[in-house]
Amino acid sequence: MEKYPKDLLTLIAHLKKLPGVGRKTAERFAFKLLDWEDNGLNEFASSLSMLKEKVKPCETCGCLKDEHTCSFCDNPKRNQNELCIIASARDVFSIEETGSFRGLYHVLGSLLSPLDGKTPECLNLPHLKERIQALSVKEVILALDPTLEGDATSLYLKDQLENLGIEVSRLALGLPLGSSLDFVDEGTLSQAFSGRAKF
Amino acid sequence: MEKYPKDLLTLIAHLKKLPGVGRKTAERFAFKLLDWEDNGLNEFASSLSMLKEKVKPCETCGCLKDEHTCSFCDNPKRNQNELCIIASARDVFSIEETGSFRGLYHVLGSLLSPLDGKTPECLNLPHLKERIQALSVKEVILALDPTLEGDATSLYLKDQLENLGIEVSRLALGLPLGSSLDFVDEGTLSQAFSGRAKF
Repeated sequence: MEKYPKDLLTLIAHLKKLPGVGRKTAERFAFKLLDWEDNGLNEFASSLSMLKEKVKPCETCGCLKDEHTCSFCDNPKRNQNELCIIASARDVFSIEETGSFRGLYHVLGSLLSPLDGKTPECLNLPHLKERIQALSVKEVILALDPTLEGDATSLYLKDQLENLGIEVSRLALGLPLGSSLDFVDEGTLSQAFSGRAKF
Repeated sequence: MEKYPKDLLTLIAHLKKLPGVGRKTAERFAFKLLDWEDNGLNEFASSLSMLKEKVKPCETCGCLKDEHTCSFCDNPKRNQNELCIIASARDVFSIEETGSFRGLYHVLGSLLSPLDGKTPECLNLPHLKERIQALSVKEVILALDPTLEGDATSLYLKDQLENLGIEVSRLALGLPLGSSLDFVDEGTLSQAFSGRAKF
């Protein structure tokens, strides 16, 4: 019984480390990559090897930035009075796509989860307080996942920030657009009731 | 509205070219890759850029080979009297995993599909006849997909090879192991009837 050539196996092993990619999918990717032009493969390879060099977290807000400029901190048009707190740099771009927020961001890097060893010390907090004072922030918006960990983190932050005398808000909980009441879970429905708004 | 950093967008564009990977999955891969160690990223990148150099189709049989040796053609232990014809180099390894075949392979590179411009000239055929004569092959096994294109190709090859006076067989058609008669399609079931064997 013969196996794939050694170098193909190495590539498959790398591809298998991508999230949600099992052996069969990694093999499919590898065979497709064999059909790519040399040019395309080399460009893909160089974009991988340069990734960490070219794309870095901003030292100030934690969002991903191009080599030299953070498109949020270094953009004077962003509203300096609103600060949106998110768990990971990836969430920034989902929020930006909505076009609903023009303020600044602060990436926590993680959510509280004491069982997994994620204590408040693991969050990017000391820096947050410095920023709030430096920027004269009026409102902090908590945009964390509505999960156990996200809610715990939101409550913890609310406590910490209210001491500083800043308005703290969080994203609305309720029915997602296009959903059907039949399929919405009880928790969401009860949040939608308690958060109902004048119409 | 801010977009991902330029170099991250480039990587996402490359990842999107993998089969079955859409924008969301490519973004997920790219963010996961940002978490990889520099070392791992560089190894992944170099295995991509060296891929075509290290893994090449064998000039004789068309299977993928390590830099210098084809594990089939250059292996004297393989049975030189049996030749299995397959559509792509990938199929070799599925067959090898079964351990049911110890002969040599010949990769056609494609199946006949006149509507897509795949005529007999597109198949690796002249070389096949030379090999059959050079190897003194006794049996040719057609291991092509049981689809319209695969069947057309099998019929065409049968015609061509019978003229050379060689025994031509094809893989059995019938019920896949673990299947349920309820869910098996009519075509498969009727093939299983006509191909029934003494028990």
